[in-house]
Amino acid sequence: MSAIDFKVIKKDGPTAARVGSLTTPHGRIDTPIFMPVGTQATVKAMTPEELGEVGAQIILANTYHLYIRPGHELVARMGGLHEFMRWKGPILTDSGGFQVFSLTELRKITEDGVKFQSHLDGSYHFISPETAVAIQEALGGDIIMCFDECPPYPAEYDYVRRSMELTSRWARRCKEAKRRNDQALFGIVQGGMFTELRERSAHELCEIGFDGYALGGLSVGEEKRVMYDIMESCAPFLPEDKPRYVMGIGAPEDLIEGINFGFDMFDCVMPTRNARNGMLFTSFGRVNIKGAAYAEDRSPIDPECGCYVCRNYSRAYLRHLYRAGEILASRLNTWHNLHYYLSLMAEARKAIACGRFAQFRREFYAKRHKGGEE
Amino acid sequence: MSAIDFKVIKKDGPTAARVGSLTTPHGRIDTPIFMPVGTQATVKAMTPEELGEVGAQIILANTYHLYIRPGHELVARMGGLHEFMRWKGPILTDSGGFQVFSLTELRKITEDGVKFQSHLDGSYHFISPETAVAIQEALGGDIIMCFDECPPYPAEYDYVRRSMELTSRWARRCKEAKRRNDQALFGIVQGGMFTELRERSAHELCEIGFDGYALGGLSVGEEKRVMYDIMESCAPFLPEDKPRYVMGIGAPEDLIEGINFGFDMFDCVMPTRNARNGMLFTSFGRVNIKGAAYAEDRSPIDPECGCYVCRNYSRAYLRHLYRAGEILASRLNTWHNLHYYLSLMAEARKAIACGRFAQFRREFYAKRHKGGEE
Repeated sequence: MSAIDFKVIKKDGPTAARVGSLTTPHGRIDTPIFMPVGTQATVKAMTPEELGEVGAQIILANTYHLYIRPGHELVARMGGLHEFMRWKGPILTDSGGFQVFSLTELRKITEDGVKFQSHLDGSYHFISPETAVAIQEALGGDIIMCFDECPPYPAEYDYVRRSMELTSRWARRCKEAKRRNDQALFGIVQGGMFTELRERSAHELCEIGFDGYALGGLSVGEEKRVMYDIMESCAPFLPEDKPRYVMGIGAPEDLIEGINFGFDMFDCVMPTRNARNGMLFTSFGRVNIKGAAYAEDRSPIDPECGCYVCRNYSRAYLRHLYRAGEILASRLNTWHNLHYYLSLMAEARKAIACGRFAQFRREFYAKRHKGGEE
Repeated sequence: MSAIDFKVIKKDGPTAARVGSLTTPHGRIDTPIFMPVGTQATVKAMTPEELGEVGAQIILANTYHLYIRPGHELVARMGGLHEFMRWKGPILTDSGGFQVFSLTELRKITEDGVKFQSHLDGSYHFISPETAVAIQEALGGDIIMCFDECPPYPAEYDYVRRSMELTSRWARRCKEAKRRNDQALFGIVQGGMFTELRERSAHELCEIGFDGYALGGLSVGEEKRVMYDIMESCAPFLPEDKPRYVMGIGAPEDLIEGINFGFDMFDCVMPTRNARNGMLFTSFGRVNIKGAAYAEDRSPIDPECGCYVCRNYSRAYLRHLYRAGEILASRLNTWHNLHYYLSLMAEARKAIACGRFAQFRREFYAKRHKGGEE
């Protein structure tokens, strides 16, 4: 028995896009969905109530960061991640693999696991598939991820093949190590930019059997075309009746492409991180709010947007807050960007439900090339 | 005709404390009141709606900061400070004097005004009583302040006397320069720690006639006892039927003392700035949330507090957010501290209305010495 239940509600038809319903121990999610990233048990600058207001249905938390600080055992003693951070909806935790490979110094990979030094204090740590599962069980997310090796980009075929094979062996160990039955476990397809390795990876993971399947190792420096090719070629390798998740992407257009290829779940720091850097997403393209052009602009960020920020504040004020380094700048910009991402998902779901996703996708591109800065 | 209307509703009796009602063009204020400081057209980390939720009735904005960035003329073109920052309630702007004297380099004081260099870019500026009023008229606060010289501490009697006399002459020029009749103008009593200079200052300002009177030049390094002595001795110099405002103080106990002596309005960065440094105010004293003692503490900051933060979050989580440098730490800590300050004012008003402020004051001190860290 899986801890989650996934149903495809409607297929677009002309495209591979689909609308689904994913039921978790902490509530139901409409897919396709974007998951705001709450790295350190908080989606930066937002309260849980505000996440609800912008339309967040599920958030992601980073296992590596929480393992390092405040520690997964502390979180468990505080009642788990939901209780600790007061987010009542579903949570997905990543496996920590990506951060171990991108943030830490002196990591050493063996068959058993990875030895590495903390990015905070240089202390030594070891994470294996078994400990990655144990940490995620302590955190208590609704969906946990297999511990995978995320190869660098570019990488040689042989390195990526060996890495993918290790990831498959680790995936089996993760499944065997799992104890809690109120958490779903997703496998992570690796294989770099080599389609045949991706296919083998997907095949091996499906043989083990998981509650959902993710594409890992994308958005690591490859060109968009390459990323889209991998998404397009890999979607058919994944079971139709399980959620399909592309990890760590992306820009709004990346989500539209992912949906187009039949993916259901996405996460990325882009809307939140870019917000803190003054970069705002709108229906007509991107806006860099620090621009002098907005100094006396009394219009909202996006006149078509109905979010709290666009209903209340002028570009002039947002520019002032940003330039003055005010916390409210990060707050309002994050609010707007997350609202943009989550509204885009809601509109995509609506379009798919009506069998007109292809048209929706064309309009998305046509509109954003009209008035933005890029 | 004054732009504001002030009525003393109830006198405590045993103490000089009083409850008042101050009507401004943007709404009515209950006094005694604490005004959160919104230096750069935002009370740091808070939205206007949240300020309402914590009980803020009036906020203060800093003329110097807004003059430097984004500029008072820009704010005026954007519809004034209320419209710019979307705070619908009353706003008081300070005169900029305190910042000119504490923040800027190479200031040169003449009879005419002050020449100084911006703390941001070193550019040269000149502010006179007339320009200080013009800037505040452009910003559009409900209450504006006379441009004063704030002498350093300690300072020689003769310096303070000449400074106070200059402040009086500047106060007259401010009143004469004032054009808008929908703003109230307050005079600022100076005179350092010399009671007889304070008395002369108050007398001279009353002769000119203002809508309210403030004590300036306190909390500049003097001991608390000295500050309290000045407040106590100066209150009787100020008209009973006008609001009395102590500028730039203070800690909760300073407000209690100020109320005890008959003052009505206070402002200070302490609740907001200390919040961002992890220092929280509670009914039983101060809490430094970074303390290891709170690492696994599931109780709220203050079990007696009913604010959003105390209703939802544990000390353990707040400590984690603070240590992780999260924006949400600043938000939640600011929320709680402002709620504490504004609830304290509400409770003080209630006590005065019942003629039991002396008892309230005793209980305030008795309680906070029981469980806090200091």
